[in-house]
Amino acid sequence: MISWGDIYKVVVAMAPLYVALGLGYGSVRWWRIITPEQCEAINRLVSCITLPLFTFEFTLHVDPFAMNYRFIAADAVSKVIIAVLLAAWPKCSSKGSYCWSVTSFSLSTLTNSLVVGVPLVSAMYGRWAQDLVVQLSVVQAIVWLTLLLFVFELRKAGCGLFSIAAAPSSAGGELASVESPPLKDVDSGGPEVTPRPSFWSLMKTVWLKLALNPNSYASIVGITWAFIASRWHFEMPSIMEGSILIMSKAGTGMAMFSMGLFMALQEKVLACGPSLTAFGMVLKFIAGPAATAIGAIAVGLRGDVLHLAIIQAALPQSITSFIFAREYGLHADVLSTAVIFGMLVSLPVLVAYYVVLGFMS
Amino acid sequence: MISWGDIYKVVVAMAPLYVALGLGYGSVRWWRIITPEQCEAINRLVSCITLPLFTFEFTLHVDPFAMNYRFIAADAVSKVIIAVLLAAWPKCSSKGSYCWSVTSFSLSTLTNSLVVGVPLVSAMYGRWAQDLVVQLSVVQAIVWLTLLLFVFELRKAGCGLFSIAAAPSSAGGELASVESPPLKDVDSGGPEVTPRPSFWSLMKTVWLKLALNPNSYASIVGITWAFIASRWHFEMPSIMEGSILIMSKAGTGMAMFSMGLFMALQEKVLACGPSLTAFGMVLKFIAGPAATAIGAIAVGLRGDVLHLAIIQAALPQSITSFIFAREYGLHADVLSTAVIFGMLVSLPVLVAYYVVLGFMS
Repeated sequence: MISWGDIYKVVVAMAPLYVALGLGYGSVRWWRIITPEQCEAINRLVSCITLPLFTFEFTLHVDPFAMNYRFIAADAVSKVIIAVLLAAWPKCSSKGSYCWSVTSFSLSTLTNSLVVGVPLVSAMYGRWAQDLVVQLSVVQAIVWLTLLLFVFELRKAGCGLFSIAAAPSSAGGELASVESPPLKDVDSGGPEVTPRPSFWSLMKTVWLKLALNPNSYASIVGITWAFIASRWHFEMPSIMEGSILIMSKAGTGMAMFSMGLFMALQEKVLACGPSLTAFGMVLKFIAGPAATAIGAIAVGLRGDVLHLAIIQAALPQSITSFIFAREYGLHADVLSTAVIFGMLVSLPVLVAYYVVLGFMS
Repeated sequence: MISWGDIYKVVVAMAPLYVALGLGYGSVRWWRIITPEQCEAINRLVSCITLPLFTFEFTLHVDPFAMNYRFIAADAVSKVIIAVLLAAWPKCSSKGSYCWSVTSFSLSTLTNSLVVGVPLVSAMYGRWAQDLVVQLSVVQAIVWLTLLLFVFELRKAGCGLFSIAAAPSSAGGELASVESPPLKDVDSGGPEVTPRPSFWSLMKTVWLKLALNPNSYASIVGITWAFIASRWHFEMPSIMEGSILIMSKAGTGMAMFSMGLFMALQEKVLACGPSLTAFGMVLKFIAGPAATAIGAIAVGLRGDVLHLAIIQAALPQSITSFIFAREYGLHADVLSTAVIFGMLVSLPVLVAYYVVLGFMS
């Protein structure tokens, strides 16, 4: 059973995030401290310096030899279930398209685990929960975001799987308004699939992208350090630790502030219209957690660890997934709405999950 | 006696500040993440949001009923000694001017107590030293910076004490190259002193300036809260505390980062030329601490508290004092050099003070 005190603890942990968000929003919209043109500078500071150091700091302290691999497996199983369903979608329904499959995968599986997840789950379940969420975030950064980037590059390279990116008709509320019938298979051929690049040249592009993405190499360098440090039992000198912490401590606040700036720059909160917003919210807050519950039960998670697996799947949308969507021009408005609106509604949704799951134990 | 271990602890505490400074400098000069035009956005974020919340957070936790008033008195005595000497300077020497007296007062007495002082003195002497430095910073923000602002307003209002602000001839290295002989006295009269404003109208302007300075009201609101909370023994609700902390935690890193941006925007490190730089450094690192030593011994401080009083007087230049100097157009280049160059040389100077004072105990 969850007491009022438990819920208050969660609200206490989350409220500061909304304050930082509000400061960012207010700085542009209300107090005009920062002009819309200047927001870019703060975004760059956050995405190139503060957030990578924030990710780095968490990743450093993972012990790769004491990770909860069952928990990670549950997460992987759920993502595979979703991927299989979404891959089958265009084959089974005329409304489906591979482009929408990619976006739906992002929406239902990729979360903002560090910035929102860490304070939230520590308030709910304590330190062990934070450690598990950090482990998932490392896997997400290294495996799942890499995979997503690979798929985006595949699409960009003109691979036949993807039809031309469709502008979602937000007025009509139709989900998959493709401009031409999607090609059902790589082998279906045709002139548009001719420049089919080799797997390795695509991988090269993906690695290059990742090497230019400060958050990715923060994860990779961080986990490499964690492996070496755990294997040979040594600690980072405090002078290095302090040098990382001085900027990484700013991570949560600056990330939320920068999301507030981003919100302030949008014409409207629901950039993609109400139907697509609802679609995104269902994927994010219902489909994702449901698939994770199936995966978690399948690998044998029980009790609080099971609850944690479900709750972390309902965290707000990963900002990186929106950045990729914007860069590759695939439903960026849907992702931006999921980031913004998802953040706004996540507190009640997550508290509801927490209470309901508490009743089940 | 100070051991190598003690010195290393100080270096560990200070190095992260220089890393954040370097990240700011490098973002503009080396990696070009942030363009010179964009720096303004980050400065505004730091000066309007991060630093005020940082100051607020420290000030909140001061217990005004348990302040070390002897320590504060020592600081006040030393500032009065310096003020008297500097007020006499234009009367006794033809090289002196009231404008240079104001700048010299800034240089020898106003320090960057929170950002640099707190980590430094905690590493040197522990938690009690941090508390004392925070108390001095509150007094500096409320009393001394207000006084400085008052003097600047007095000068701006055309009060006869001040001659026309002279451009320092950095080439010749002359200190007080005034364009006309300074007026020695308010009563000396003349057409330029005619619009002499009343004390209260000046004070009104000063208070208005302070009310528009987020750092000032962070101090005033913070100390007011501290008074009320200490008097009636209540604590801030953790939801408020967390909401302040989320941005204030970014304070040290962002302040140093922003100083790094400022450094990167300067044409040269010694904006005011080598002679004036040396003059500033002597005031900052020798005259200030010497006057504080006299004040501290006069009020009866001994041992570590005496050492702390001397060391905190040798902290790098207060950034606010530079901001005022720039706003009122009085020797801004000298102050900017004191901020930048002072920061760069402060680590060895402060460690030297620490070691020498350690030998004396």
